[in-house]
Amino acid sequence: MKNSPVSLGLDFGTESVRAILVDCTGQQLGTGTGDYRHGQIIYSLPGSADPLPANFALQAPNDWIESAAIATRAAIAESGLDVSRIVGIGVDFTSCTMLPTLIDGTPLANLPRFSNSPLAWPKLWKHHGAIEQTRRMNEIATQRGEAFLSRYGGTIGLEWFFPKMLETIELAPEVAEAAEVWLEAGDWFVWQLVGGSAAHLPRSTCQAGYKALWAPTEGYASRGFLEAVHPKLLEASENKLPGKMLSPGELAGYLQPTMAEHLGLPSGIAVSAAIIDAHAAVPGVGAAEPGALVMVMGTSSCHMLNSLHHKPIDGIAGVVDGGILPGLFGYETGQAAVGDAFAWLVKLLNQVGFERLAAESRSLPPGANGVLCMDWMNGCRTPLMDGALKGGFVGLTLGTQPAQLYRALLEASAYGLRWIVELLRDGCVPVNRFIATGGLPHHNPDLIQVYANVLGAPVEIHPSQHGCAVGAAVLGMLAAGQEKSGFSSVISAAQAMASAPQGQQKVIQPDRQHQAAYDQLYLQYRKLAQAIQSLA
Amino acid sequence: MKNSPVSLGLDFGTESVRAILVDCTGQQLGTGTGDYRHGQIIYSLPGSADPLPANFALQAPNDWIESAAIATRAAIAESGLDVSRIVGIGVDFTSCTMLPTLIDGTPLANLPRFSNSPLAWPKLWKHHGAIEQTRRMNEIATQRGEAFLSRYGGTIGLEWFFPKMLETIELAPEVAEAAEVWLEAGDWFVWQLVGGSAAHLPRSTCQAGYKALWAPTEGYASRGFLEAVHPKLLEASENKLPGKMLSPGELAGYLQPTMAEHLGLPSGIAVSAAIIDAHAAVPGVGAAEPGALVMVMGTSSCHMLNSLHHKPIDGIAGVVDGGILPGLFGYETGQAAVGDAFAWLVKLLNQVGFERLAAESRSLPPGANGVLCMDWMNGCRTPLMDGALKGGFVGLTLGTQPAQLYRALLEASAYGLRWIVELLRDGCVPVNRFIATGGLPHHNPDLIQVYANVLGAPVEIHPSQHGCAVGAAVLGMLAAGQEKSGFSSVISAAQAMASAPQGQQKVIQPDRQHQAAYDQLYLQYRKLAQAIQSLA
Repeated sequence: MKNSPVSLGLDFGTESVRAILVDCTGQQLGTGTGDYRHGQIIYSLPGSADPLPANFALQAPNDWIESAAIATRAAIAESGLDVSRIVGIGVDFTSCTMLPTLIDGTPLANLPRFSNSPLAWPKLWKHHGAIEQTRRMNEIATQRGEAFLSRYGGTIGLEWFFPKMLETIELAPEVAEAAEVWLEAGDWFVWQLVGGSAAHLPRSTCQAGYKALWAPTEGYASRGFLEAVHPKLLEASENKLPGKMLSPGELAGYLQPTMAEHLGLPSGIAVSAAIIDAHAAVPGVGAAEPGALVMVMGTSSCHMLNSLHHKPIDGIAGVVDGGILPGLFGYETGQAAVGDAFAWLVKLLNQVGFERLAAESRSLPPGANGVLCMDWMNGCRTPLMDGALKGGFVGLTLGTQPAQLYRALLEASAYGLRWIVELLRDGCVPVNRFIATGGLPHHNPDLIQVYANVLGAPVEIHPSQHGCAVGAAVLGMLAAGQEKSGFSSVISAAQAMASAPQGQQKVIQPDRQHQAAYDQLYLQYRKLAQAIQSLA
Repeated sequence: MKNSPVSLGLDFGTESVRAILVDCTGQQLGTGTGDYRHGQIIYSLPGSADPLPANFALQAPNDWIESAAIATRAAIAESGLDVSRIVGIGVDFTSCTMLPTLIDGTPLANLPRFSNSPLAWPKLWKHHGAIEQTRRMNEIATQRGEAFLSRYGGTIGLEWFFPKMLETIELAPEVAEAAEVWLEAGDWFVWQLVGGSAAHLPRSTCQAGYKALWAPTEGYASRGFLEAVHPKLLEASENKLPGKMLSPGELAGYLQPTMAEHLGLPSGIAVSAAIIDAHAAVPGVGAAEPGALVMVMGTSSCHMLNSLHHKPIDGIAGVVDGGILPGLFGYETGQAAVGDAFAWLVKLLNQVGFERLAAESRSLPPGANGVLCMDWMNGCRTPLMDGALKGGFVGLTLGTQPAQLYRALLEASAYGLRWIVELLRDGCVPVNRFIATGGLPHHNPDLIQVYANVLGAPVEIHPSQHGCAVGAAVLGMLAAGQEKSGFSSVISAAQAMASAPQGQQKVIQPDRQHQAAYDQLYLQYRKLAQAIQSLA
């Protein structure tokens, strides 16, 4: 519609940010992307030759700011839009990606005295430096019978907020001393957009609920627990986590002039509190009903499910009341290495791209001629919640060729998903629809076919390649308020802005012959999981 | 010495044959090699596009004849020798590499009507088509309590003579019907050299003893057993295994004119009965004393040990009275994939050569930064005697790089060797000296260093790269008789012709710091072996 209100969604991924402009009818007017100048910082800090430890993964805060401007300006240019129609901005971000700052929001990594201190830099979600800290936190939480554990399937994750904070407290105390604020990168970016003092910085209940042991009625983890882990952790929790808690879609503030100019937008636009990238996909694909598993597939996969009931299930990453959509229990589960694992394997096998492996593997029968893979190259998120687990290949012979490893990895990813679905169903949480979104399903349709065959169920591929970004735009629209947007609830906004147009939802049907073979092979995968666990 | 007697050793490996001319003082006068035109026939038969099953490995008989001439003529040319000084020829050959022929020795593979029948072609030692047949033979032998099992660690090997014969009987009955003689390729080649009728074809007790369930006092496996397995197997055993049994070093006959002309030699030279290639290395490195483990390392590894006593040990491939040297019990153990596995990995990782991986892996600490390998890519020979087992890698992360896999494979090979040594020692068979020979120790000194570190003992590398070929030459000299050669026993011939010259034996010392780490890592390898077995 010519003068319909428009929202800007900013979707911060692992390698780049995507901007999308969506109007209230769901029309996508323009998109743009900005690659992070330093991508994932894995081998050494910018400007340094010192190698980083193998399990480090950092990012540069300036990359987010720079890339957001590039992506937003590209989206505006593509749309030809009068920017005065933009009424809201929503932000989704990888999580838990977190950083320490000064009280004014300046990242410690930007200070010359800390530019060579890895633990002063933002830790990317996949940073695995806190193995020892996580182990200890879980031990103490279990010993103390901490009630919060039941919300997280019994385990604190290696990639979460408190282990990452504790890693810096213990291993870089000078950095921890200098930190005045600890926060999620998504919250930090929203803070940059709206300005204001640290006391009012907008923190997302979604990120806090799933990654920082926070619940509406209880706040963060108990004082006694934090003190038992490390007195400095309690101190940081009490003094260095300022701000106000807001749900995704709630108004965080209005776009301040400096950032407005940087992004090429008018100031004063409403900005929503942040949401975890994967969780944004649920409104982003218009899947508001209980029982629909929304699979956000990229470097890793996050599988979101809404349910009417709260069932405690061992191994579920998190269950948060209204964590995804109001009025429903949001279940978050995940697979820690998906696109990342494919990229790793292609590089390990010294291939130029994955096309040749994909073509050769397509004709292999289920089971990759005997090769079986365990896809724990980045640990196991659901159901074992153990970031220290590692992957493997078995069934190798002198005749084993690269395409078999590739196919086995596709299959392992599918078995991992099936394990999650069985876990939910065994816990009396219905799963009756599968919707894939994110970049990967479009780049790798073979993977979705294997998923359908292994699940024995059709898998929908949402036609938007930008489900998360659209979800962020839905939340931005909501933050603009009913008067400007016309929407009074996230469900109505999601349905209007993000449902797949009639006939455009691609549905991959399972191959029933393969399905029977996969029923057997899945049991082999579960045996391999046990075998690998037995080695630890 | 100017007019000293000379012997020709012909060493038939998996890819090529090596010829060596050695005089009675151990002087090596010339060498030559001939690559088999068709190498290992793995993907399709020559002249055919039909793919072979994945576990097939065949060879072409004409390749052996052609390549022997190329290698022999090259050795003579290099030596500048007056060929009339050559008094003996010895032949070692991979085993069990076997084939069906007509009564006159014509290979069935050379007949037009069978040129497209894979099971009419010689089966290379590593051919694994008889998995089902081997399983059944072991089941029946165990049920019947066959006494011969105790000589073979309780198990008939997948790569042995009778399973390979039975595979053709069951899966290509028209080929089995047409077969008039079944024999080892080494025996076939010696037969070609000396001519004569099938009734007198010279069969090696070494090959029969280690690979064909044969013992001096008992002959082949019992009638009742063979009949229980398959009546045609009994029939073949009784009617299609003609010839006379000879020990390595015994006179098989004299070089007949046609082959003499082909090889560029005078006719009438004494020819020894064949020996298994690996076993030829024991005289070939001059290691005649009990307790010296001679490790013949190539595509696979064969570890030979002489002992004063016969101790039945589960999992030892074979113990044959005088099987290697007269008067001693010869223990044969082996690792089924060594050089082959390295070549496979280099190809899998799409590397041009192994140099880059080797250079990068050299600086890794013991344990390849967490990657652990099971080197069963061609099954497990000692101690599990199960050709159907498969290899694997565990401990993989998104940071795992090719050099880690390479290093993990080196280490797995060393752990596999340590397992064998512990098995022998636990069975009260002393092992107190390690001598590596074959092509691999010279091409891959890193591997020997890892072996020394994992064993916690020095490993000698015999300076001859041609231990097996020299061993064959020693046996050829012996066959020439005392009058012509001057030697009355294999021990005196081996000492004179094959001892390492003073100061030329390279000895790799263990790194004691690494050794302690490897004591722990070896236990992990054993756990991985159990875990992989639990998947079968």
